[in-house]
This record gives sequence, C-alpha cells and structure tokens, in this order.
Amino acid sequence: MTRSALTRNLPILEWARRYDRSAFTGDVVAAVIVTIMLIPQSLAYALLAGMPPEAGIYASIAPILLYAIFGTSRALAVGPVAVVSLMTAAAVGNIANSGTADYATAALTLAFLSGAILLALGLLRLGFLANFLSHPVIAGFITASGILIAASQLRHVLGIQGEGHTLIEIVAGLWAHLGQINLITVALGVSTTAFLFWVRKGMKPFLRRLGLGPRMADLGAKTGPVLAIVATTLVVWAFELGARGVAIVGDVPQSLPPLTMPSLSSSLISQLLVPALLISIIGFVESISVAQTLAAKKRQRINPDQELIGLGAANMGAAFTGGFPVTGGFSRSVVNYDAGAETPAAGAYTAGGLALAALFLTPLIHYLPKATLAATIIVAVLSLVDFTILKRAWVFSRTDFAAVTATILLTLVFGVEVGVTAGVVTSILVHLYKTSRPHIAVVGRVPGTEHFRNVLRHEVETQPNVLTLRVDESLYFPNARYLEDQISGFAADKPELTDVVLMFTAVNEIDLSALESLEAINTRLRDAGVRLHLSEVKGPVMDRLQRSHFLDDLTGEVFLSQHKAACNLATNDMAHPQPLT
Amino acid sequence: MTRSALTRNLPILEWARRYDRSAFTGDVVAAVIVTIMLIPQSLAYALLAGMPPEAGIYASIAPILLYAIFGTSRALAVGPVAVVSLMTAAAVGNIANSGTADYATAALTLAFLSGAILLALGLLRLGFLANFLSHPVIAGFITASGILIAASQLRHVLGIQGEGHTLIEIVAGLWAHLGQINLITVALGVSTTAFLFWVRKGMKPFLRRLGLGPRMADLGAKTGPVLAIVATTLVVWAFELGARGVAIVGDVPQSLPPLTMPSLSSSLISQLLVPALLISIIGFVESISVAQTLAAKKRQRINPDQELIGLGAANMGAAFTGGFPVTGGFSRSVVNYDAGAETPAAGAYTAGGLALAALFLTPLIHYLPKATLAATIIVAVLSLVDFTILKRAWVFSRTDFAAVTATILLTLVFGVEVGVTAGVVTSILVHLYKTSRPHIAVVGRVPGTEHFRNVLRHEVETQPNVLTLRVDESLYFPNARYLEDQISGFAADKPELTDVVLMFTAVNEIDLSALESLEAINTRLRDAGVRLHLSEVKGPVMDRLQRSHFLDDLTGEVFLSQHKAACNLATNDMAHPQPLT
Repeated sequence: MTRSALTRNLPILEWARRYDRSAFTGDVVAAVIVTIMLIPQSLAYALLAGMPPEAGIYASIAPILLYAIFGTSRALAVGPVAVVSLMTAAAVGNIANSGTADYATAALTLAFLSGAILLALGLLRLGFLANFLSHPVIAGFITASGILIAASQLRHVLGIQGEGHTLIEIVAGLWAHLGQINLITVALGVSTTAFLFWVRKGMKPFLRRLGLGPRMADLGAKTGPVLAIVATTLVVWAFELGARGVAIVGDVPQSLPPLTMPSLSSSLISQLLVPALLISIIGFVESISVAQTLAAKKRQRINPDQELIGLGAANMGAAFTGGFPVTGGFSRSVVNYDAGAETPAAGAYTAGGLALAALFLTPLIHYLPKATLAATIIVAVLSLVDFTILKRAWVFSRTDFAAVTATILLTLVFGVEVGVTAGVVTSILVHLYKTSRPHIAVVGRVPGTEHFRNVLRHEVETQPNVLTLRVDESLYFPNARYLEDQISGFAADKPELTDVVLMFTAVNEIDLSALESLEAINTRLRDAGVRLHLSEVKGPVMDRLQRSHFLDDLTGEVFLSQHKAACNLATNDMAHPQPLT
Repeated sequence: MTRSALTRNLPILEWARRYDRSAFTGDVVAAVIVTIMLIPQSLAYALLAGMPPEAGIYASIAPILLYAIFGTSRALAVGPVAVVSLMTAAAVGNIANSGTADYATAALTLAFLSGAILLALGLLRLGFLANFLSHPVIAGFITASGILIAASQLRHVLGIQGEGHTLIEIVAGLWAHLGQINLITVALGVSTTAFLFWVRKGMKPFLRRLGLGPRMADLGAKTGPVLAIVATTLVVWAFELGARGVAIVGDVPQSLPPLTMPSLSSSLISQLLVPALLISIIGFVESISVAQTLAAKKRQRINPDQELIGLGAANMGAAFTGGFPVTGGFSRSVVNYDAGAETPAAGAYTAGGLALAALFLTPLIHYLPKATLAATIIVAVLSLVDFTILKRAWVFSRTDFAAVTATILLTLVFGVEVGVTAGVVTSILVHLYKTSRPHIAVVGRVPGTEHFRNVLRHEVETQPNVLTLRVDESLYFPNARYLEDQISGFAADKPELTDVVLMFTAVNEIDLSALESLEAINTRLRDAGVRLHLSEVKGPVMDRLQRSHFLDDLTGEVFLSQHKAACNLATNDMAHPQPLT
C-alpha cells in the first residue's frame, strides 16, 4: 500500500502529523462543551431506542474514537441520534421486549450488521447508493419520524404505558392507558418541556440582558438540558417522588463501556438485515449532509466512500462496547464546530470526558425522572418537523410532491421501514415514468437563422414531406417503444411524408433496446417508403452506434447539424424514391 | 360518450362500416388456413400448459372473437402461445397437480386475473409499464423459455415421467425416470421431430420441385404439422400402440366451449396475482411487437392502451369458456397476415372453424400420441432460441450484456418468474447506476470559435479562475449529491477559483433534490468566496427554476450561451469580490 493510499484509508495520518498546541486548545475546549451536551442527549436517545440509559453513554465513546481514526470530517460528532434510535426501537422491538437481555443483544447485533454494511459499501465504493434517497424523501421521512418520536415519548411525560411503532399504535396505546395517568409525572414532564422550549427561544436573549457576552450566553443556553436534568433529579430526590409513581432511571452501573459480543444467530441476522440496511443508509445520508455542510465552510473535502468506512467502524465499535446503532448527528456536530473543534482529536477528548462520566457520574442520575429525558427528546425532535417541504415540493413539481407525501403518510401509518422504502420506490417509479414519456418536439427552422425550435412554441418554417423530431431524453428501454409509437403515429397521420429526421442534441445515451427500436423504426419507415435520418449525434452516442449495424442499414444519413440536414433534404427532393405503398 | 371516443374503445365500429365482399373473401381464405394451423398448435400448447387438449381449442375461440371486437390490430391472432403456456404451467403447477379439477380452475382464474390486469392497465392508460421489459431482457427471456419448454417436452418424446419448472428440475426428473423409457414412443417422437424440422427447412423447396406454385408450396409446407398428426394418429390406431405404452390424448369431449367460472377464493387469487401480472406483461409485450410489425407494413396504427383492452377481453373470454391465459402469437399472426386477412373478422371466421372442430373432429384425435404434440412444440420453440443476443449485447454495451445474461441464467436456474423479474430489476438498477454518475466534462473554448469542448479531448483555452463544467445528464436525485461531491472536489483542488459555470445543454429535467443540491453548491461556493453561474438553460428547466428561490439566491448569473458567460467573466475579473476565506 502506498503512502497516499494509506492516508486515504486512515485520514488520521494526515492531520496527526500537523497537530499543534493551538489545535489542541481548540479541541479541548470543544470537547468539554460537547461532553456536557452529550450526557443528557445520550441518556435520552438510549431511552428512545428502548435501551438502558448507560448504553447511550457507551454508544458515544468507542464510536467517537473510531470515527476520529477513520472518518474524513473534522467536525462530525458520532453517537446516538434521534431518527436512528427510533429505527432501532422499531427493528429490535419486533424481536424482543425492551429491557430484556435479548433486546440488548439484538441492538448490538443491529449495530454490528449496520457497521458491516457500511464498511462493505465503503470498501466497494458503493456510497452512491445513498443518493437514491431523494431530498424530498429524506425531508418527509425526518418530519414523519420527528412526529413519531415525539408521540412515542408522550407516555413518559404522562407517566403511563403504551408502546407502538406507528402513529395509530401509539395513539391507541396512549388512549388505552389514559386512566393510569400520574399527575406528579405530568406536572414534572410538562414544566420541563415548557422550560426546554423556553431555553431554545428565550434563554440566550435573557442571559444577554443579564449582562453575559454573546459567546457565554450561547454556551449558557446550551446547558439548559443539563440544568433541567439537575433540577428535576433534585426535586425527585428531595420529595421522594419515586415512591409516588414517578418513573425514574434507577440504578445505573458505574463502569467503563463493557466488552460485548453481537449475536451471530442466522435467524436473528436475517430478521435484522433489512432494518440494518435502512439504518445504514439513513444514518449515512444524515451524517454526510452534516459533514459536507460543515466541511464546505472551511473548503475541506469529504470523501463519501471513506465516510462509509468511518461510520462503519463507529458502529462496529458500538456493537462491541454495549451500544446500539450510531451516526453523525446534526446538533452535536454543529456544537462541536461552533465550539472550535479543529481536528477529529476533539472527538477523542469528548470520548474521554464521557468515559469519566460513565465511571463517576452515573450514581447521580439514579433519581433522574424519565419524563425529563422524554421532554428533552420531544423538544429536540420537534425542531426536525418541517412541513414546509410539502409546500416547496408542491410549487416545484408534482412528482416530488407525490414522493414526499407518500413518505410522510406511509411512515406515520406503517412505521419507519415501510415509509422510507416506499419513498425510495416512489421516487424511482416517478423518475422512470417521466423518462418513459420524454418530451418529443416537432421542430422547424426559425426564419433567417440556423436555429430549429418547437413548431408549437415558435413561428418556424417546415417542409410538408420532412418531419424533424427533437427527442429531449436519453434513449433507453423505458422510452424505446414510446418513440416507436410516436413515430408510427406521426407517420400514419402524414401520408405525404418522405423523410424523418431525429435531432439528437439531448440524447446522452442509447441502450440496446433503444437501438432495436431505432432499427424497427428504420425498417417500418422503409416499408412505408420513408427515409430516416439523424442529426447532431454526440460523440459517445456515435461511438456506440458504430458498434452495431444500424448505421449501415439506416435508409437516410447522419448529419453533423440539423441545419445541414434541412439544406440537404430541401435540395434532394427530386432525387427521392417513391413511397412503396 | 362521443362517436370518436366510442370508435376508439370499440375499433370494430370503424372497420365494420366499410366491410365489403373483397374483404370478406380475403378474410374467409385466411380463416380456413389459420384454422388448420391452429388445431395442432392449440392441442400442443394445452399439453404444455398442463391442460386437457380440448382446453387449447376452447382457449382459441372466445378470445379470438373478443379480440376482434376490442383489438386494434387487423392481423393479430390471439390464442395459446408457447411462452405464456409455459408460464401458466409454472404458476398453476405450484398450486395443483396437472389433470385435476383444481388445476383447471386455477388456470381459469389465472386467465381471469390476467384479463382483469390487462383491462385495468388499458383503462388507466398504463401500457407504458410494458416498456420496462427491455429488448435484451425479452430476448434473453424468450431464449431461456424456449430451452425450458423444449426440455420439458423431452419426457413426452421419451415416453417417461419427470416434470419440473427449472432446467435443473427437468434434467433431474428425466434422469431419474430414464429407466422407464418406451422405445416405440421414442421412435414415433424422434421421427416426428425430424419430419417437422424437415418441413420447416426442406418441404417448401420439395413441393416447388414437384411443380407447385410458390403460394401453394408455402401453404402445403404449413400443413406439415397436420400431416404429422394424421399420420402418427393412424399408426397408433392401426397397430394399437396405445396398449403398448404409447401415451395418447384419449377421450376428448365433443362440445362447444363450456361456460366456466374462475374461482374467487382470496387465497388462490393472492397466490396467482404476481404470476398473472408477469403473464399479462410478457403476453402484452409479445403481442404488441407482433401487431406493430404487421401494422407498419400497411401504415396502420396500433394503439397500445387499446391493445391492452383487447387482450384483457380475450383473457376474460378464456376464463369463462374453459381456457387458460392467451395472447397474440407470432406464428399464427404471420400466417393470418400472409394468408390475406383484411379485418379482425378473419379472426371471427377462424373461431367458427375451431368451434366446428371442437364439435366434430375431437373423436378423431383419441389416438393422437402425446409424443407428436411434444415434437410440434419442440420444433416450434427451438426457433425462439437465439443466443446471438448475447454477442450483440456484448459488442454494444456491457450493461445490456449484464441484463441479458442475468435473465437467461436466472430463468434457466430459478424458472420463468424469477428470471423475468430479475431481468427487469437488473435493467433498472443498471440504468440508475449509469445516470447516478453522469459524465461531467471540464470545458474550454476551442480557439477562434464560440464552441466549448472537453479539456481532456481538445486543445482549448481556459481561465485559471473560472471553472466551466458541462453535465451530460438530467439532474435528479440519484446524481444530485454526485454533482455536489464533484464540484466540492474541483473547488477544493483549485484555490485560485473565483467562478464556476455549469453548462446545461443536456439537462432536460431538474427535480427538487437536484435543486436543493444546486442550492447547497451555491451556498458552499459562496462560503468559499466563489460565484456560481449557469449557461444555456433550456426553457422548461428555466420555468422550473423560476418556481423556486434559487435564481434569487444565485451568487452569479444565468447566461443565454456559454460564449456570453466566458466573455462576461473574462472582462469582469477586476470587479470580482474577494474570496471570504
């Protein structure tokens, strides 16, 4: 392996050589801030994923370290994130009950499979597969997931039972258990939620009015969730609310991340394979858009295939250290970036901070009410819910609107896996439908020029016996027969026709189906006494055509430009053979 | 409903008004010839489909009549065909044993579902769906089906058991029963097969040498299969070979097609739905290519959506009259056309001829050996086997070669349904892969001209601070992020960059994902102090962009031509803002 290949696959070799004191200071400051922010987030997303709270902290340690070694983004912070945690709960919830050892093993296995898939895609350079999630599908999916997540956490705020992975299940579950509502939990949960909403909007201006500088006010506002956790934990401890029905986190082991093994049971793997694939792709897409946005600000370059390897390694790390599937999160990465992280080493220091927390802080969260964590989640995910995508898609194109609507509705009604799959399938079908009926314009010459434009939109000159068609699409199997039908139709409608010219300005590709359709068109026109010509054929398309017999059999000519075709066919009229009919 | 709408949906109204004596004569002559040809073909394809022999004749009567009313092709002959019969055997064979009442009911139900699907596709104008079967996939599928069919009939020629729906099953079945071989059957079967091969190649020249005119010799050669049937039936009858182990057709009811009802059992329907969909689409594709080839010779027009309705009605007819799935067949249609059929009425007269045969001729085929029918099938389908598609695809494009190879291998190994599905999926994936990594050329000006060409292929002039990229594909979700990556890469590599121009000559479409990628590119370049421009944007794409905020946010300009862009950016250098980094 050459040095540059090594650097490509181990980006750490590149930045570690130039690491200096200034980068170190920036990284440590960023790490302290991110660590404080990550503790409540990690606990909350563990709850969302149906895992014990410490798993959230474990899932933030090894993955951060491994991403720092293999990843290319300098600001991305990897760990549990909302949507992937929801997908984990949906996938693992089908297999085992939350809180059991089987559940934890399935979550480890899911992280392992997801890591293996990401590594495989990265090594095979298949990162482009993520592109099949279109922007509207992702936006619709994130919005619908945000609603599902917020709805699924309501039960913790109300202090009742009622699980579910679709909106209908969740609402039905809440309704069925509404009688068991715990008013103290509601009071705690609702006030925490209200406080956190205020933190988001009003705390920074408030701190500024108290006289803090902008940077300190900003940092202060970020500690809001920590404040909420400390305050509600103290309240529960002081008034012994745990004994009065408020669900608390309870005993959390005081330890570094344990060494764990994913299961290799083939039945478990076959059940988790599709969810793992979806989690990998969704996680990758979320992560890479964050990474690219942050990298562009500093003109750094993100290598998508290497990112797959970084995220794959991170998930492998989660699988072997008591975690669950992870990816690069938006909020934590932005904090990392804003806090001045210079290199992936910042992530390593964050990992160190979290390891200290796992060792020494866990006894302190015994009395932390689950309602507080649920409130943290609700406030975080509601910022993901954004229905403006519906309006934008509607205005821009109906087909994009169809894809985003299908994604949102199916995610809410049938859950995350059906929703995102339906979104991808809808996008592909809509695209195939559009390209299967390409725009084909009859064109004529704009008088006094060499330009040829659509006869329906412009005043142009045409000859009665020559039909010139401009096909606005590459020719391939979904539209090959459409072209045959269209040309048969035009030819049947014009008995005086002697020549058809196909103008190939926008034809970037011809496949074998299209070639055979062109051959059929050529033969059928010949049988009807009409010649077929091509004009403005691009180099690569011409190369392709020359590998077949089509050009030998073509009854007409290939003209370099449409102008030449028109001149030639106008003067050639007399020499033209009679129709055979 | 207006008159023209009526004529569109009932094409019979159009041709029946102009029906005259000359058309009548032509039609009757064609009908007699086609009837004679259809009797052995119908019996043989019933055997292939696992149905009793009379079902083949029934399946040729009502469908022909209904197609005559609803179809648009004037020469298409509808009835049992080889590939669809094979697919029927594969689908129904999974549900019941051949020869049982359940088997016949399942076949009726399959025809009913297939008819319903075709009608629905036709009424919803969804005929374009058939285009997703690319030419190489169809060619590969037909070739592999031909091999499967021939192999499946070998057991009748050898006089042994051994069913199967994949090549491996068939070969294993033959091998296991090889001990039971019946030598008289082999003698009959092999000599009939040899005779029929000779009929195909040598009979017409032979009849010409005997002094017959070309038309009579042609007709005489077409009666070859009838001759084989008469001769072998007489031999079996005369020497009582039925008692010596030669499998014969046996008692065939002497009746008009019975009135039958498909089953509406939901479990049966759910088992048959996917096979019915595949049969519908394969049948439609086969039928429409025959219809279009024949129609083009007379400059007649085929309406694909109306063809779906015609074939749907034909299959409905088969379902209610003791038949099984049908479609427009190549060999019978060509005979119909060559024999001079003028209108769909020829089909109606053929139906009458077959009804007479069903009433009066069935006792005569009691002693007809199954080996003769198998020989008829083998000779017919081996003409479908054509491996030259592999070579043509290989030469023309590797991706088409991948699709055709996958189709052939998977059809042979896993059967018809897996094979054709895999072919479609492979074609779509290959297309998506290709468009997901479009050709993006860095272009520069060809000295002394207004032309801009690829810097790698031509000697061109460029400016160090301006990067001009030509994207050779519509911009949509699979390639949206690729474009982002490419531009980020180019920008990261050129620190002196101040302007990026995207040349949109071959961009026919922009979807919301691509728009958001363009917005991201614009923002990221802006953050890096680089302006983004567009040039040569087509009208429809410009319309689309104007429905968004993109043009307001664009840091640069939209130039009518690349030439204008280059001139403007060259003179504008001094006025350019400083990079922000």
